[in-house]
Amino acid sequence: MTTYRTEHDAFGPVDIPADRYWGAQTQRALAVFEVGQERFPDCLIHAFGLHKMAAARANMRCGVLNARIGEAIVAAAEELRCGRFDEHFPLTIWQTGSGTQTNMNANEVIANRANERLGQPRGTKSPVHPNDHVNASQSSNDSFPSVMHMTAAIELEDRLVPALGRLRDSLHERASAFADVLKIARTHLMDAVPTTLGRAFEGFTAQVDNALARLHDTMPRLLVLPQGGTAAGTGLNAPSGFDLAFCEEASQLSGLAFRPNPCKVEGMAAHDALLELSGVLNVIAASFTKIANDLRWMGSGPNSGLGELLLPEDGLTSSIMPGKRNPTIAEVMVQAAMQVTGNHVTVTMAAASGSFELNVAKPVLVYNVLQSIRLLADSANIVATRLIPGLQPAGERLARDLQSPLLAVTALNPTLGYDKAASITRHATGRGITPRDAAIELGLLDGETFDRLVDLRRMAGR
Amino acid sequence: MTTYRTEHDAFGPVDIPADRYWGAQTQRALAVFEVGQERFPDCLIHAFGLHKMAAARANMRCGVLNARIGEAIVAAAEELRCGRFDEHFPLTIWQTGSGTQTNMNANEVIANRANERLGQPRGTKSPVHPNDHVNASQSSNDSFPSVMHMTAAIELEDRLVPALGRLRDSLHERASAFADVLKIARTHLMDAVPTTLGRAFEGFTAQVDNALARLHDTMPRLLVLPQGGTAAGTGLNAPSGFDLAFCEEASQLSGLAFRPNPCKVEGMAAHDALLELSGVLNVIAASFTKIANDLRWMGSGPNSGLGELLLPEDGLTSSIMPGKRNPTIAEVMVQAAMQVTGNHVTVTMAAASGSFELNVAKPVLVYNVLQSIRLLADSANIVATRLIPGLQPAGERLARDLQSPLLAVTALNPTLGYDKAASITRHATGRGITPRDAAIELGLLDGETFDRLVDLRRMAGR
Amino acid sequence: MTTYRTEHDAFGPVDIPADRYWGAQTQRALAVFEVGQERFPDCLIHAFGLHKMAAARANMRCGVLNARIGEAIVAAAEELRCGRFDEHFPLTIWQTGSGTQTNMNANEVIANRANERLGQPRGTKSPVHPNDHVNASQSSNDSFPSVMHMTAAIELEDRLVPALGRLRDSLHERASAFADVLKIARTHLMDAVPTTLGRAFEGFTAQVDNALARLHDTMPRLLVLPQGGTAAGTGLNAPSGFDLAFCEEASQLSGLAFRPNPCKVEGMAAHDALLELSGVLNVIAASFTKIANDLRWMGSGPNSGLGELLLPEDGLTSSIMPGKRNPTIAEVMVQAAMQVTGNHVTVTMAAASGSFELNVAKPVLVYNVLQSIRLLADSANIVATRLIPGLQPAGERLARDLQSPLLAVTALNPTLGYDKAASITRHATGRGITPRDAAIELGLLDGETFDRLVDLRRMAGR
Amino acid sequence: MTTYRTEHDAFGPVDIPADRYWGAQTQRALAVFEVGQERFPDCLIHAFGLHKMAAARANMRCGVLNARIGEAIVAAAEELRCGRFDEHFPLTIWQTGSGTQTNMNANEVIANRANERLGQPRGTKSPVHPNDHVNASQSSNDSFPSVMHMTAAIELEDRLVPALGRLRDSLHERASAFADVLKIARTHLMDAVPTTLGRAFEGFTAQVDNALARLHDTMPRLLVLPQGGTAAGTGLNAPSGFDLAFCEEASQLSGLAFRPNPCKVEGMAAHDALLELSGVLNVIAASFTKIANDLRWMGSGPNSGLGELLLPEDGLTSSIMPGKRNPTIAEVMVQAAMQVTGNHVTVTMAAASGSFELNVAKPVLVYNVLQSIRLLADSANIVATRLIPGLQPAGERLARDLQSPLLAVTALNPTLGYDKAASITRHATGRGITPRDAAIELGLLDGETFDRLVDLRRMAGR
Repeated sequence: MTTYRTEHDAFGPVDIPADRYWGAQTQRALAVFEVGQERFPDCLIHAFGLHKMAAARANMRCGVLNARIGEAIVAAAEELRCGRFDEHFPLTIWQTGSGTQTNMNANEVIANRANERLGQPRGTKSPVHPNDHVNASQSSNDSFPSVMHMTAAIELEDRLVPALGRLRDSLHERASAFADVLKIARTHLMDAVPTTLGRAFEGFTAQVDNALARLHDTMPRLLVLPQGGTAAGTGLNAPSGFDLAFCEEASQLSGLAFRPNPCKVEGMAAHDALLELSGVLNVIAASFTKIANDLRWMGSGPNSGLGELLLPEDGLTSSIMPGKRNPTIAEVMVQAAMQVTGNHVTVTMAAASGSFELNVAKPVLVYNVLQSIRLLADSANIVATRLIPGLQPAGERLARDLQSPLLAVTALNPTLGYDKAASITRHATGRGITPRDAAIELGLLDGETFDRLVDLRRMAGR
Repeated sequence: MTTYRTEHDAFGPVDIPADRYWGAQTQRALAVFEVGQERFPDCLIHAFGLHKMAAARANMRCGVLNARIGEAIVAAAEELRCGRFDEHFPLTIWQTGSGTQTNMNANEVIANRANERLGQPRGTKSPVHPNDHVNASQSSNDSFPSVMHMTAAIELEDRLVPALGRLRDSLHERASAFADVLKIARTHLMDAVPTTLGRAFEGFTAQVDNALARLHDTMPRLLVLPQGGTAAGTGLNAPSGFDLAFCEEASQLSGLAFRPNPCKVEGMAAHDALLELSGVLNVIAASFTKIANDLRWMGSGPNSGLGELLLPEDGLTSSIMPGKRNPTIAEVMVQAAMQVTGNHVTVTMAAASGSFELNVAKPVLVYNVLQSIRLLADSANIVATRLIPGLQPAGERLARDLQSPLLAVTALNPTLGYDKAASITRHATGRGITPRDAAIELGLLDGETFDRLVDLRRMAGR
Repeated sequence: MTTYRTEHDAFGPVDIPADRYWGAQTQRALAVFEVGQERFPDCLIHAFGLHKMAAARANMRCGVLNARIGEAIVAAAEELRCGRFDEHFPLTIWQTGSGTQTNMNANEVIANRANERLGQPRGTKSPVHPNDHVNASQSSNDSFPSVMHMTAAIELEDRLVPALGRLRDSLHERASAFADVLKIARTHLMDAVPTTLGRAFEGFTAQVDNALARLHDTMPRLLVLPQGGTAAGTGLNAPSGFDLAFCEEASQLSGLAFRPNPCKVEGMAAHDALLELSGVLNVIAASFTKIANDLRWMGSGPNSGLGELLLPEDGLTSSIMPGKRNPTIAEVMVQAAMQVTGNHVTVTMAAASGSFELNVAKPVLVYNVLQSIRLLADSANIVATRLIPGLQPAGERLARDLQSPLLAVTALNPTLGYDKAASITRHATGRGITPRDAAIELGLLDGETFDRLVDLRRMAGR
Repeated sequence: MTTYRTEHDAFGPVDIPADRYWGAQTQRALAVFEVGQERFPDCLIHAFGLHKMAAARANMRCGVLNARIGEAIVAAAEELRCGRFDEHFPLTIWQTGSGTQTNMNANEVIANRANERLGQPRGTKSPVHPNDHVNASQSSNDSFPSVMHMTAAIELEDRLVPALGRLRDSLHERASAFADVLKIARTHLMDAVPTTLGRAFEGFTAQVDNALARLHDTMPRLLVLPQGGTAAGTGLNAPSGFDLAFCEEASQLSGLAFRPNPCKVEGMAAHDALLELSGVLNVIAASFTKIANDLRWMGSGPNSGLGELLLPEDGLTSSIMPGKRNPTIAEVMVQAAMQVTGNHVTVTMAAASGSFELNVAKPVLVYNVLQSIRLLADSANIVATRLIPGLQPAGERLARDLQSPLLAVTALNPTLGYDKAASITRHATGRGITPRDAAIELGLLDGETFDRLVDLRRMAGR
């Protein structure tokens, strides 16, 4: 049987389960917002811990909080940061568009915990008050967007960049291993000219290298925080210098170089920086789609498909076709990419929807950005560890495909000119003979010259 | 300490937590697909219960399963349908694009439970085998898309249609209550002509009425199931008539009129029907955006905004501005709509991605459709119950806004013609006088005629 | 050297090229909106002719216009409808969100032409006045959305539905021709089980059949017009019954069954019906993507690809690889589909953006819908006429692919059970022998039984 | 009567209108691709002129072309670059996905014109051959994507960046002019705290400043060209060093610092760089939406709206409401932004669709990117020149809105604490009195202290 304690807020008393650290505004919100099941990921809750630690330290530096209250907040917020209170954030993302309820949830949990550390029971709001102390010099309107940026930056640093690095290295390793494996290149899905399997993997590697460069280039705008703008970007109720002090503390705690947004209202009323990031995540999704689909197709068949690559076994099979092996991991990557592109549209609509001093689509916006980061990182990881390293070329098939009768004529262009080369194709196709025989029959080249010009390895640029 | 049992599949032995009903293929998949946190909602798991019940009954009718095994499967599947095994579906949606792992998860849970009911320990696969019996006459390739359709249809019936009904009724009730409340109509956000507050709510009501009609019109294609196509739409290993028997059983169990897809491969290789549904959900999202934004704006201010509507109290406020009331519930609806539109893009990409006999973006596709249904339904419910009924007109403000000096001239067009009416506007604006005085000064109308022509209530069409 | 005439409007005199039929508001708009190059397609301009004919007739019926003026408008509008004045609509779509400038453009062209027919020079606005007579009982706010619906309905009827019919018939014809051509089915791009080439085309045919059904189901909402709502859905300045009279005249002229929207404000403030249509166009785009990609892949290679279908010659080739044949027409269809899906997002945002009594994203919305219709229709036409009829099966390759060693085991499931069938796969793969030999070696089946069970044609469901 | 000449290509003779410079492949393509009306904008055709100039020069440097032929190509290509042959590009964008037909169109026009300059009639293909000389060392597969990058970079430099600069400056000027104009800030559309009108425009200015920074950051990847990769990224038939020579010539001609893509296949098989750019255009679209919507709302009413800004007259009005002024230019910007976001989805799908050595959605991809650039630039220009400079604050209204009774309490937080401040709100609202009177009645503050704490100008941060 659940027991309850009673807390009070500006609207009166509220009953709260006795073992929960949240307070009155969180409890009220729970009753109002019965929508969906989507929660903020833990990383955002933990970033709130980091945020409130930095805010308390900055408030102490600025003389807003005394050491006793300030340190109690820091200690409680650190517990939040470390994941101790994940279960005390019961709300879904479907709440006020400023994220106020989750900011108040953090304020309430920290206040209750800080008071507990100071020997007071939960619900007293004294000596540590959720608004006056934990939220001191802040508003949800500058805190929540600061946490949005902080969480995204941390997730990039801790999750996506390392995963892309792993993917990049695995692709690069295969590119080197396959550097001399000749294969046919396809354009418009049709037989084209010789290339190498390594070059295909070099292309993938370059895409991931560029992904890292793109992420890097978003950082100057992502590390900028609107903290200090308070309710409407004017800084009302925040001491002078609070913005800089906060960023210094947050940087020191996180190892990331956060800086104050010189135009607070830009960082609260718009979310262009996160939309820019989402745009880069969307590019990565497109890169992943290209890579994963190429792998699916190169591994297709093996009999009735292209059959150029042998995919590693994963122990999974069909429910009706015993032993059938499918490119399951690549399919995960493609599906994750689809989600990221859809998320990007949501983020675009959310980012464009600001009015005056506040954008009120913050929860849905950051939820989608964080989900995209997670999905790209996780799918990169399993592709890098479970798919790429085990890929093997199907030598026989690769060699057979290079026998394409039309492959040769492109190499003859510089010698014969396009029109004569084309006549060889026509002649060969019409009579069902090889281009070599056609060239000889047409009196355009002797066999020796043909063989010299049509050297697959040289044509492949090796 | 977790204890394990060992199960075997085509690839060898696998250790599984002893208290779990899932089997080897699920356990293997858990190790492979470490991606994301998104699970299928319970409604899909429950629909799998319904599906396997119907399949077992159809298999008994077709002579594929004997009564002992068939009834054991029906009983176990019914438990699944009722939610007893929700915790036994550990996989995320990020798996093979055919949904094979979740189909196998269902097969394994049901087989283990059925064997248990028949006195055998978990993991024996005997007498009930997950592939041979629970999955009999089926493939993941026809079962999973059938469950996709079934779950969506059930969610519409049980969740979205009732919620839209509630929303519609709440709007209609306010439309009636406000039928005689005059207000200014705005076009391009600018003062236009008189209308009524009721008419605004009639517009909203009509949008929701149309939403219901649109959903209704998708049903002929949504209730059609590819079951019976097995691996590739050819019906291999399914007895003749299985498709019809399955649909009859599923219909009888669910109360929905499912029918066999006459072209099985269409229902497995494409998901046009679910994309069509997502398109309608997207229309509803647009309707909700219009409705919620109008409510936000009509309730804005109250001092510095439009202030036409008083929004009901919800007990939530700002973390820095004590007592501030925000249109929180309408903001949830707008954010939910953004998610639905982004989901729709994901669904579009997923639906377009089929190759040959199979679309392999099924998990991500159905996940997004089901999330959209849930978000639209839940946001409709809280708007219908917590926002609409408490709306009150701000009489004084509504009256004041009708004093717009330019409001009158449109009513003079039929009498004076457009150009003379325009001259009144110019004259009034230039001299800072009322249109009435301008009309008199210009000698176009006497005051009495002006007053007769410019009757706000008649102009508003009441 | 251009000569000019001077016209006057509410803001003063404006110089207009003497040979142009447009008037002062159009000329002013030209100077203001120097944005982009996108014009409304002719079909919308022609539909404005139809619209103004119907409006003039309805105004005569309602006693608003006398016969002399009314008939002059009808005659001028008919010329507009027939394409005589296409060059007299100089504005791009980037104008006021109500489409007011294009409505005024139509009013001005018709008034000038009607006056000309009545013996007056252009620019007199007498006896026919663009606002008082051509626009009588109307506003841009109800006329433009009515024209949006009318144009879309006409384009469906005249362009898209016939094109889909052609595509459907061409696919159906090939499905019949290929009914007995065995081929391998692929799931996850991997060798699966036997099917027929005809069945693949049956799947495509079913998709197009459903496209036609989907379009049909949007008509009840598309044929509904807000005409009669005038400025803000209240009907101010329109006589009672004008809405019905207009729809009757428009129906009689067009052959389409237009009906008045019972809730005018819904049809002016929202564009859910056009978004619904766009959603169906988006489904068709997804269907086209599936069909075109399957054709590209089935025709790929021919040597290093799947090579199942021979594509007809189109006379186009590579600039560097002489004689290379590419699936050009299918690529057009895929690209057109991408445009339609992007357009759909634009339409979604436009449709969701209405405020109060008016949606002010009408031009961009209808432009995208009409472009989507055109692209789907045109690409359907060239695929139906230039690609599908010339497709030929590559018999040798189709037969070779059916030799997939793993193809057989699925057929053994009902006899041996899944686990034993799987053991055959394992045994055959491990030893590099055929499944038939493996089954015999394992003592599971004799050769004769194997051959009876593994009958490709029966497995393919023929 | 059109007269024709006959040209020949690999497929035989083709009749071409005698006065056209295009050749056989273009003429064949015209007959095949009867789809849509969308043409590449002139800027891409001109960039093809630049491209072929640079290629001819590089070919001369590399010894592939002699001076007579090389210079003839350069001269003809320069004419193309200057716009002399715009009418000789008759194809729509709906063609092969490699852009081959437009590349061949350029090759043919230049060859015919070069031969003409050398005294030969059109159609001779001698001495200048479209494939052997104009296309020497090239393929459509590396030329078209290089032109895509070049055109986009030029359009940014020549069109979008200057337009953003103009917009930025106009906003900044208003920010300065309005620096001391107090107004109410709104969060959630509700009365919040005092701010200044200047700060709102600072926010807009910051968004445009960031837009410029974002565009700048995409350049490292946009200026990289795959030229030299020829058919499949292997460089077949291009001399060593051609890639660098081409980029040097193109840079010298254009003033932009083009560099060779070190991984050619990445630049031909993927279009991540253009998708990245489109992502930034999408951010700009979101910024524009925020700015334009804020302007629409601040200028709304003027009576029944917010009425904070007076919008400049543009001479356009309603067709039924004489003299009504609408925010037409802002509406154009919002609609343009919607198009850009839709285009971005198309670009995303196109960019993700590459297979193996080639992406075959190039035409639709670049068409959308270039349209987005144009629409953003043009709408920025008209907003910067016709809307922003004429904006004036509505002083009386701004002052009135600052009288919001609830405005004061937030300023009391630091002194009284949140809960007591909240009690003032409750007390004031309940009794219908001012917060000042409430504070005094509750004994929390005397009037003098209240007035000192609640200083609107200081609260606004001025």
